Amino acid sequence: MAPAPPGRARDLGLACGRLPTGKLNRISDVPGVTVGHCTLVAGDVRTGVTAIRPHPGDVFRDRPLAASDVLNGFGKSIGLMQVDELGQLETPILLTNTLSVGTCATALVRRAIAENPRIGRQTSTVNPVVCECNDGYLNDIQALAVREADALAALDATTAAFDLGAVGAGTGMSGFGCKGGIGSASRQVTLDGTVFHLGTLVLANFGRAGDLTLPDGRRVGPADAPAAERGSVIVVVATDVPLEYRQLRRVIRRAGAGLARVGSFYGHGSGDLFLGFSTANCTPHDAKSDIQPLRAIAEARIDLLFEAVAEATQEAVLDALAASPSTTGRAGHFRPGLATLL
Amino acid sequence: MAPAPPGRARDLGLACGRLPTGKLNRISDVPGVTVGHCTLVAGDVRTGVTAIRPHPGDVFRDRPLAASDVLNGFGKSIGLMQVDELGQLETPILLTNTLSVGTCATALVRRAIAENPRIGRQTSTVNPVVCECNDGYLNDIQALAVREADALAALDATTAAFDLGAVGAGTGMSGFGCKGGIGSASRQVTLDGTVFHLGTLVLANFGRAGDLTLPDGRRVGPADAPAAERGSVIVVVATDVPLEYRQLRRVIRRAGAGLARVGSFYGHGSGDLFLGFSTANCTPHDAKSDIQPLRAIAEARIDLLFEAVAEATQEAVLDALAASPSTTGRAGHFRPGLATLL
Amino acid sequence: MAPAPPGRARDLGLACGRLPTGKLNRISDVPGVTVGHCTLVAGDVRTGVTAIRPHPGDVFRDRPLAASDVLNGFGKSIGLMQVDELGQLETPILLTNTLSVGTCATALVRRAIAENPRIGRQTSTVNPVVCECNDGYLNDIQALAVREADALAALDATTAAFDLGAVGAGTGMSGFGCKGGIGSASRQVTLDGTVFHLGTLVLANFGRAGDLTLPDGRRVGPADAPAAERGSVIVVVATDVPLEYRQLRRVIRRAGAGLARVGSFYGHGSGDLFLGFSTANCTPHDAKSDIQPLRAIAEARIDLLFEAVAEATQEAVLDALAASPSTTGRAGHFRPGLATLL
Amino acid sequence: MAPAPPGRARDLGLACGRLPTGKLNRISDVPGVTVGHCTLVAGDVRTGVTAIRPHPGDVFRDRPLAASDVLNGFGKSIGLMQVDELGQLETPILLTNTLSVGTCATALVRRAIAENPRIGRQTSTVNPVVCECNDGYLNDIQALAVREADALAALDATTAAFDLGAVGAGTGMSGFGCKGGIGSASRQVTLDGTVFHLGTLVLANFGRAGDLTLPDGRRVGPADAPAAERGSVIVVVATDVPLEYRQLRRVIRRAGAGLARVGSFYGHGSGDLFLGFSTANCTPHDAKSDIQPLRAIAEARIDLLFEAVAEATQEAVLDALAASPSTTGRAGHFRPGLATLL
Repeated sequence: MAPAPPGRARDLGLACGRLPTGKLNRISDVPGVTVGHCTLVAGDVRTGVTAIRPHPGDVFRDRPLAASDVLNGFGKSIGLMQVDELGQLETPILLTNTLSVGTCATALVRRAIAENPRIGRQTSTVNPVVCECNDGYLNDIQALAVREADALAALDATTAAFDLGAVGAGTGMSGFGCKGGIGSASRQVTLDGTVFHLGTLVLANFGRAGDLTLPDGRRVGPADAPAAERGSVIVVVATDVPLEYRQLRRVIRRAGAGLARVGSFYGHGSGDLFLGFSTANCTPHDAKSDIQPLRAIAEARIDLLFEAVAEATQEAVLDALAASPSTTGRAGHFRPGLATLL
Repeated sequence: MAPAPPGRARDLGLACGRLPTGKLNRISDVPGVTVGHCTLVAGDVRTGVTAIRPHPGDVFRDRPLAASDVLNGFGKSIGLMQVDELGQLETPILLTNTLSVGTCATALVRRAIAENPRIGRQTSTVNPVVCECNDGYLNDIQALAVREADALAALDATTAAFDLGAVGAGTGMSGFGCKGGIGSASRQVTLDGTVFHLGTLVLANFGRAGDLTLPDGRRVGPADAPAAERGSVIVVVATDVPLEYRQLRRVIRRAGAGLARVGSFYGHGSGDLFLGFSTANCTPHDAKSDIQPLRAIAEARIDLLFEAVAEATQEAVLDALAASPSTTGRAGHFRPGLATLL
Repeated sequence: MAPAPPGRARDLGLACGRLPTGKLNRISDVPGVTVGHCTLVAGDVRTGVTAIRPHPGDVFRDRPLAASDVLNGFGKSIGLMQVDELGQLETPILLTNTLSVGTCATALVRRAIAENPRIGRQTSTVNPVVCECNDGYLNDIQALAVREADALAALDATTAAFDLGAVGAGTGMSGFGCKGGIGSASRQVTLDGTVFHLGTLVLANFGRAGDLTLPDGRRVGPADAPAAERGSVIVVVATDVPLEYRQLRRVIRRAGAGLARVGSFYGHGSGDLFLGFSTANCTPHDAKSDIQPLRAIAEARIDLLFEAVAEATQEAVLDALAASPSTTGRAGHFRPGLATLL
Repeated sequence: MAPAPPGRARDLGLACGRLPTGKLNRISDVPGVTVGHCTLVAGDVRTGVTAIRPHPGDVFRDRPLAASDVLNGFGKSIGLMQVDELGQLETPILLTNTLSVGTCATALVRRAIAENPRIGRQTSTVNPVVCECNDGYLNDIQALAVREADALAALDATTAAFDLGAVGAGTGMSGFGCKGGIGSASRQVTLDGTVFHLGTLVLANFGRAGDLTLPDGRRVGPADAPAAERGSVIVVVATDVPLEYRQLRRVIRRAGAGLARVGSFYGHGSGDLFLGFSTANCTPHDAKSDIQPLRAIAEARIDLLFEAVAEATQEAVLDALAASPSTTGRAGHFRPGLATLL
């Protein structure tokens, strides 16, 4: 369907901000984080699943600190309520299209039971986390093409050097009238003399044609008349900086500044959702003692992370557009790749 | 497995509060509201699905005002984020066991598409609402016994004169060391000379053995030593009183007073969740004009609804216990019916 | 005006729950916590200020972990927004009448500047925390009788063995048709073999006449016809258990169960507000390193604190009523002491 | 101290967005809204009070629909908790410096009592709303220079044609290393063929030197090395579009997009706070009937307001900087006017 993705945002001169990037300029610069895709392209189907593993181990047994922040709750994700009550993840994170959330949630449940046969019998149940955007412009979303096996395939394919653009959950997404998809970026921050990382991965499916704003202030986009902003964006934020829940929620909230910098006004139809985790504070499923040690950043230093997440979100959105080729999908609907417009 | 349910809370002398009940003393006293069950009992399976329809029409096209309030977010429900962003329901509400949320969500999606073939193609997608409790003590929850057809069967079975106790989603639930399940109650309130109704339906699966408190102050329960409070409770609140979103959220929050009156301290493991809707303010999917008329209660009169929801939640929990027979389930696990302990 | 307070809730047989109390059965069983009052009684004035110091040091320089939870936001407190953003206190807590919040906030500012002359010049400003209830039934609240000097007097009078009932901010309060005021209670919890404390202090000014429910289920109150529930209740929760912000907020939320047990349905006119702090995790104003150590309870053990706060809130409300004598105030308005009704 | 303000943002070519402005391009384009200032300049004092009246009548008796949204709660405002519980204003809004909130709140209380002698005696109390920023760089904030009379003077000086820049609460504020202060803007939106207005007023005291971004993408600012982002910003949003509370909260949340467009990443030290009201849905203090009519925008049309508030917030911040002259204040501290840097 499409040629090889044209590259990264930085290849198009679209670097954002002032902080240094990690080695891969991906969320996987946070040690242990990996990402996998399952891409479905056939007939009018342009969709898929993307999996984010916070660490190589069993997430049910070793639970990363997590938080969500909802900028616009016009979305159908599952699992965030418990993330915010308990401040932790119990499964990897899946991204997919809006109508496949149920199927992906069930896949996560089955996989967790397979790995932890005590679930629901001798111990608690499990909280699957699945976020989504509506790819119905390019994808025949009614087909419910995603099967549980596709979700498991994405989980089994995770790697640090993952693909970007029109892959996995990003296969059928749109943004600012262009082809959207999966983008990523990372930033380095130094605390007490140690280098830490903060990385973002976005599923970009938002933004009105004509509103896209580049770091130098230029506006670009297809010549279509402005239409209603639809779609959504999911921003996943990972870091190895030690944080407590309250701090992590403050950090991920600044993803909204990154979205505004690329031209969003958080439109009505756009479910804008931020989900973060820190690998520095993992909770064992079965704690041995009643009081547990934690570590947390000194609040006076937290601006470094605020700036990092704003930059890395802005750049990850541009990366999603830069890495996606022009695509024709359902009913002949077409989205140009950003690279073709510059 | 079990004899006919022993009756209602009021049959056991467990009436709560001072306000008059509706005719059925059920959530279906709110005109148009109906409830259906699909009950699954086989081998170690004791589970099911309960459906609540807010009105007889197509909920996707005629959307009741809705709100949720999360007292304890240790739960896996889907759909509440959008309910609170947009203040409306787009599907009937399903209740089921924790690990069947994904399957029930997919069933709601398929049914909505069947009824509205424009979903995801010419118009927006749809937000399925499914809430859950963990019935793993009496039910083999790992079996994932609920299929999409079971969810559809519950949707197709709704009626005003629905069953109570160990039926539908309540089949395998426990509460206060007793058999839990589905309970309901309603109250009449008079505003501007007109009689309105507020009704509750609970999926009761919470409460520590020994903590159950009856309206006269008596504590009852099996002689088991107190164990950790587990499980959860879902309280669905319906009313035909005109409310705006903010008011409805205030009203359903008072369900927490009802839970405390029966002996809960909102334990860690108990996802306590309130979901309400008003049939008086429905939004059409395709509004014709830019400005819409609404009606809302005068805030100075809202105490009447606060009292009604506290009473009707307290009584619905007792009703769930009263209507449930003693039950033996998975691995020989046993829960006595409350009626056998009085 | 009034005879010596009649005693504590336990003197009237009104003990609540099953956990052991601390030595004083007051919030001051948490090591370092002290409370002081300034009581104003003259003409139609029945009001005052109550101060809670979280520790003996300078709170601006050594900031206890703190959180608030708003059950009903019909109130005029100041300072909670920042408490929840930063998770810490910067001043002692003051309680007073509704219209004196501004004066007490200014008093806290002046005192903080006097103790830390760098405030607002070389360092940040300061966040005063003042909570309130409306004592206008017994007190001429329009008189704005509280002066800054009264707030400072309360701050300077703090002690572990503080008075209860119709003193300080409680001087003119009402509850359930009785005389309300200041009540307190504490509970012991054992974690990793060490005894910790959780204590509550309530400013009780809520509850409809006739709704008061004693631990044995009896309803008591003056024979007045039920009127609208007005007034408010502030519950301050202290503990020396190590908690993170998210956990502390979960803990204090369970104060609502205690309020419901005494007969509240969280009436419209009642600003029900919970404010907690943990002395185990203090943040220095000037942290030396970028990453700080913390300690937190293992979440699986948190039910112990949930139960403690529900019990200690229930008992503190009864304590406020038990410790208050019958009182005549503004315009001859009268509230009987609870002890006179039993 | 300073020459006449240099003008408006549009005079400097800094227009934002695509929607038409109202006649004054001020918040007072919303019919009935007026603004007044009391400016205090003497010695090291550079501070003041700004008052916003939502309509010409008595706000206690005729209460506009209101909502707040907290992007960063590092601030000391009073009154927002009740605004969000009840969805209405009871007083005009005052803006001032951080340490003068208590004094201004007391002034609002006294004024409300003078106008409604039943407050606190025969009827409820009153909820004063005061928001603040920290002007301590240019102002001797420790002096607590604002007196109650100054707050009343601002209330008595309100007019549609109010001054901008270094006036009232804006007298001592800073932003992006420049002189900050009061800015305003408005936008017209057409619904059902009728022209409505949405206006913003900002108290701008935020932004790191060097981060200021103009609508054409240029970055400007003093040559100072980047320092920590401190200060805060208050965005007051007024509209005559009929909205319900939930909708109004959604609308004002988009002010955050406007802040990001000018270069903010919502820094740690910046209390970023949005407060909105609609004059189209006023609640009488004493409602005559139990059910009240309301009007609300059709949600599908709300993007128009989202875009308007993003544009008008962006432009109001630039307006605050454009309208402020270079200023020397406390201890010789200096902030250049933006006009001198272009």
